[in-house]
Formats: sequence, structure tokens, C-alpha cells
Amino acid sequence: MDETQPRTVTVGLGDRAYDILIGPGLVAGAGARVAASFPGARAAVVTDRNVAARHLAALEESLAGAGIASHAIVLDPGEKTKDFAHLEHVVDEILAARLERGDIVIALGGGVIGDLTGFAAAIVRRGMRFVQMPTSLLAQVDSSVGGKTGINSPRGKNLVGAFHQPSLVLADTGVLDTLPEREFRAGYAEVAKYGLIDRPDFFAWLEANWREIFAGGPARTEAIAQSCQAKAEVVARDEFETGDRALLNLGHTFGHALEGATGYDSARLVHGEGVAIGMALAHRFSARMNLASPDDARRVEAHLEAVGLPWRLSQVPGELPDADGLMAYIAQDKKVSRGALTFILTRGIGQSFVAKDVPASEVVSFLREQAGR
Amino acid sequence: MDETQPRTVTVGLGDRAYDILIGPGLVAGAGARVAASFPGARAAVVTDRNVAARHLAALEESLAGAGIASHAIVLDPGEKTKDFAHLEHVVDEILAARLERGDIVIALGGGVIGDLTGFAAAIVRRGMRFVQMPTSLLAQVDSSVGGKTGINSPRGKNLVGAFHQPSLVLADTGVLDTLPEREFRAGYAEVAKYGLIDRPDFFAWLEANWREIFAGGPARTEAIAQSCQAKAEVVARDEFETGDRALLNLGHTFGHALEGATGYDSARLVHGEGVAIGMALAHRFSARMNLASPDDARRVEAHLEAVGLPWRLSQVPGELPDADGLMAYIAQDKKVSRGALTFILTRGIGQSFVAKDVPASEVVSFLREQAGR
Repeated sequence: MDETQPRTVTVGLGDRAYDILIGPGLVAGAGARVAASFPGARAAVVTDRNVAARHLAALEESLAGAGIASHAIVLDPGEKTKDFAHLEHVVDEILAARLERGDIVIALGGGVIGDLTGFAAAIVRRGMRFVQMPTSLLAQVDSSVGGKTGINSPRGKNLVGAFHQPSLVLADTGVLDTLPEREFRAGYAEVAKYGLIDRPDFFAWLEANWREIFAGGPARTEAIAQSCQAKAEVVARDEFETGDRALLNLGHTFGHALEGATGYDSARLVHGEGVAIGMALAHRFSARMNLASPDDARRVEAHLEAVGLPWRLSQVPGELPDADGLMAYIAQDKKVSRGALTFILTRGIGQSFVAKDVPASEVVSFLREQAGR
Repeated sequence: MDETQPRTVTVGLGDRAYDILIGPGLVAGAGARVAASFPGARAAVVTDRNVAARHLAALEESLAGAGIASHAIVLDPGEKTKDFAHLEHVVDEILAARLERGDIVIALGGGVIGDLTGFAAAIVRRGMRFVQMPTSLLAQVDSSVGGKTGINSPRGKNLVGAFHQPSLVLADTGVLDTLPEREFRAGYAEVAKYGLIDRPDFFAWLEANWREIFAGGPARTEAIAQSCQAKAEVVARDEFETGDRALLNLGHTFGHALEGATGYDSARLVHGEGVAIGMALAHRFSARMNLASPDDARRVEAHLEAVGLPWRLSQVPGELPDADGLMAYIAQDKKVSRGALTFILTRGIGQSFVAKDVPASEVVSFLREQAGR
């Protein structure tokens, strides 16, 4: 592997295919790459105050050096920014900058910035091209790839949005060095997820190499590239989530319920931690349903424990609702039709599948048992 | 032609193909058709107070009769409703009604309701199916077909939106009987437009049959069906307006400038009237540029005069800006690059084409001459 060149993963979506570049130095090198991909285009850069303080000047300098005029739109950090008011603000700023359909919008930030910016790009002039520059591990391996964009509604998360693929993703692995350890670890849950979905060898490699991934360097880039490759393949098979793409929700049904039950209070639980517990529960529940061996559930739990991620309900700080209370959160997230749920379950490490008609009563009994662990 | 069955025009867009049904009684008959097309779906119906007073009860009764539960969302009539605040309201109401991705949203109304509702359907849960039930002639022959949805921005009309094709269009020609004459006439400008773009025989037929079209009956249904067919063919060729679809803007560059110059005051000028003047000016300008015969411009002017539509600047009530002032409105609407504009011009009746590099100076001189007419 040539260390000076970024890794490239292509998302194969016909005339909407695009490249994900992964490696260090991509913020400082963005100007030349953007100029090459979008000759003559002007740019709006959407980011949040925290990311702006660390990386905006470098990006603007790089764009200017490549002759690209840019207009920065700096938002408040945090999940609350993913709402209608901020969407309207970003749309208005893009229009105020007189960007045309041929120009580009750049999202520089984590999942919140990427989701909001992608959605704004989807609807300004009925669709502008946009570039994802994810600055968190979670965004690099998950939300910046695949074209799901959107905002939250008071009635639920991500209920308003569009499928709008980016035209380019620049994942600068160097910016991850400034991430708080807890946030990096939470993003790692989504990395492990790709192994658990359908890549048992990748999961085994993670078990052997997670220390190097956390330390940075080539193993980290490799883990991110493998994750993007895994997601790209799922997205290319099922762009609009009519089937297989649902596998990416492994761990997310339990995870979202826990996020809801903790009031989306990041002091108690962040998304990746919810997913970690959710994946462990999905494996444990699959074992309970005699679909998979308890050894596989133990292996997942052991790996999450090793990297410092939570894997059982009692690790969520503070009070949690009881089993029926958690079930109510699950029912809010998904349609419960005639007492049955759709869940991502597994037949073993790397053998996840979409299970329809999972009895809600079994899930409640399971949660009751788990509450004591 | 079987008078008891509606005419059907299919918009050929592969897996997003859909039918436009045209004929009387389609509001009262909507329930059975919706139930057949979307078995098991629930519905939200978005409309405005004026349309609701005339047609909502009949539609709700028809849906209920076919076993379709529906939730009505009734908005203020008028262009001001096409904004972010109303979009957020409609989205929230659809979510409050707990509609899922498999359910449908029905737009019952004119262009404002259709554009806003289609956009809301495009973004709720990243895309719900929707049904257009256009109640104005303009909406039946133009805005309900082709998937352009959106809202206005303080920075310009239709600057925010999505391409989102309806799954079905039900154009009830009977509801047009209750339209004010001026509104019907304005919609007729878009009917004539299809003849002028590329259907000289259709234009000749309109010259011979316009009285019957205005009177109602089979000629009206025929004119609407021909218009929908014309638009469907353009949309199927160029769904996302990267080329040919721009022909549908014949008359719209001058028209939008006049709408802007009159402050979108419908007492002075409505959209179709602006398009009528715009089409006459486009033909006159084409003659001035020696692209077409002045006889063709005279023929267009005579037909617009016959049906009672305006065709020259002096027919706009009140003061208009001078030629430079109008040019400023044109420049706001389109990108003027290096003093040149893209315009829809013509080589004669039914021979419109996309003209690039039209010198802005020629347009200004032309407008100066026209001001005295």
C-alpha cells in the first residue's frame, strides 16, 4: 500500500457512482481534489463551531489555493441542529451565496452536519451536488456513505429527509486524532457491526488488531476502508432500503430504544454505545431463540468489553424503564403489526439476517431477563 | 371514445411510470381507483379552504366508501402557502396521522397545493407515494405532471424542492366548471404552449376549436389529454431538465419577469397571463432576430387576442419598469453569463428551440421597442 495516496472505495451506483477517499491529509488536500472533480464550481462549506475551530481555516485555505471561492456556514454543534429551522437557514445561506445547480455544497463535520447538509443540498434548486468530509469515525464509516440525508422531527429522529448521494467523500483519517476517546470508541461499534453483519473474517481481524486501530496509523485506515467497502456493497445492492439494506440496522432497534429511554442525553449514552449494547442483545436474543450458539454471543460481548464499549443494560448509567417500558420505545421506532416485529437477528458471527414476525412477547420476556444482568 | 371512461395518458418513466386519468367524475370516483392502485394504504388529503369547501366532502366520502381511512389537512389558499412554515406543518400533520411509507398523500387543489404536497411527500420518511388531484386547468395540464415539486424562498420562486413523481394523477374535468373564467383562461395559455413548442397541428386545432374547449365537454377533455401527452413525452425524455425539458419554459422568461415586476399581484397579472405575453414576445423577438416569420408572431398574437388573453406589455394594468428594469428581473431569474442568456426561441409555430448565447443587449433593445406597443 502506497502510504502517500489515500485508499479509494467506489460506491457503484451507475450514473450516481462516487468515490470515497480515505487517508491522512485530505482536509489540507481538498482543494486540488475538489477542483479536479468539479471544474469551475464554487462552494458553500457547512460545519459546526467545534469543527470549524479545528479544521475550517485549513479547508478554506486549500480551496482558495485551488481557485475555489467558498462561503462558510457555521452552525451550533449538537443533535438539536438537525431540525427544520436550521435546514431553512442553511438553504437560505446557500441561495444567498448565489450558488447555482452546478456548484457544490461541502459538509465538514460529523453525522449531524452531514445529514443536514446533504438534505439541504438535495432540495436547493431541486438538487445540488455535495461533498462529504466526515470528521468523526462514525460519520466516516457510516453516515457519510450511502446517501441517507435528513433531519429530526419532534415526532422522531430522521423522519424527514431524502436519498441524495454525495458526489465525493473525503475521509481524512488524520482529523480523528483530535476526537475524544469516547467518541472514537462509539464510532468503532459501527466498524464492528460490518464484521457481525456478513464479514466474519473482518470481525476476527478486528479482534486481533483493535489496539492498532485505536492507536491510529495504517490499521485504522484499513478498518475504515473495509467498513466503507462493506457499506458501499450493501448500498449498491439496495439503495432505497427495500430489502437487504435493513441489515445495516443490526443492533439499532435495541439501540434506538435505549437512546430514547435515556432522552438522547449524550452524558448517559451516545448512538454508538446504544448500537454496541444493541448488537450484543441481538446476538444474545438470537441464541435464546436457538438461532445461534451462545458462544457467538459471548464472543461479541467479550470484544465489546475489550475495547471498552458497553454491552449490557446495566452499563447504562441511571435508571432505565422496565421491559414493557423499553418495548414501548421499540414499538415507537417500528411498526408492530399484529404483535410481530421485524428485527435483525443472526445465525452466528457474520451471519445476520432480516427476521420478520419476531413475536413482541418474546422480546419483552428477553428484556425482562436482561434487566437483571 | 367511450364517454363513461376517462382518457388515460401514461408518463413513461420505467419503474416510476404512472397514469394520468382525465375526465369528469374523478373526484367522486377516486376511492375505487385509489383502492385499486394502493391496496391497504391509508391517506392524508392536503387541500386549501376554497377547494375544500367545494370538493373535500365528496372526496372523503369516496375514499371512505372504498374503505380508505383519510386525514384532511386544510391550508390557506394562495401562493404564500408555498413556504417553509407550511411545509413543516404539512410534514408534521402527515407524521401525526402516523402514515407509513406504504401509505399515500393526496394533493387536492391547484398548483400551490400540488407543489407543496408533492414536496412534503418527497421528504416524509425519505419519500412517500402521492396522488395528484389537480383542480385548476393550469395544474391539470402542467404542474401536476412531471414530478417538479417545491416551495418558494424569499430569494425566489420554486428555489427549494425535489423531483418526485406522483404515482397517479386524477384530473377531474368536471371541477373546472366551477373555476372563475379568468383562471380557466390563464390555464389555457399553457395548453396553447404545447402547440407552440412542437405540435403545430395541435395549435391549428386549438385555433379552430377553442370556443368548444372553453364551453366544456369532449373538446376540453381532448385538449387536456393532448397537453398531458405533450408534457409526458418531454418529461420521459428529460426527467431532470438537463436538456429538452427546458422547452416547457417557452414564454416563461418574459412571463416570470412580468410576474416579478408586478409584485406577484394577481389582481394585475396571474402566471398564465404572464406566460401568454411571454409567448407572444418570444415569437415577436424570434421574428426580430430573423429566426421566424413575423406572420407566425402575428398568428400567435391573434389567437391569444381571440381567447381573451393578453399578448403585449401595455395590457398589464398599472406601471411597468422600463426595458432595463425588466432586464434586471430577467437576470434575477436566470444566470446571465458574459452578457448572454439562454432563451426559448422559435423558428415558427411548433418549432421552438433552446437558444443559448442570446445577447442581453438585443433583449433590452427589443423590450424598449415593445414598451410602446
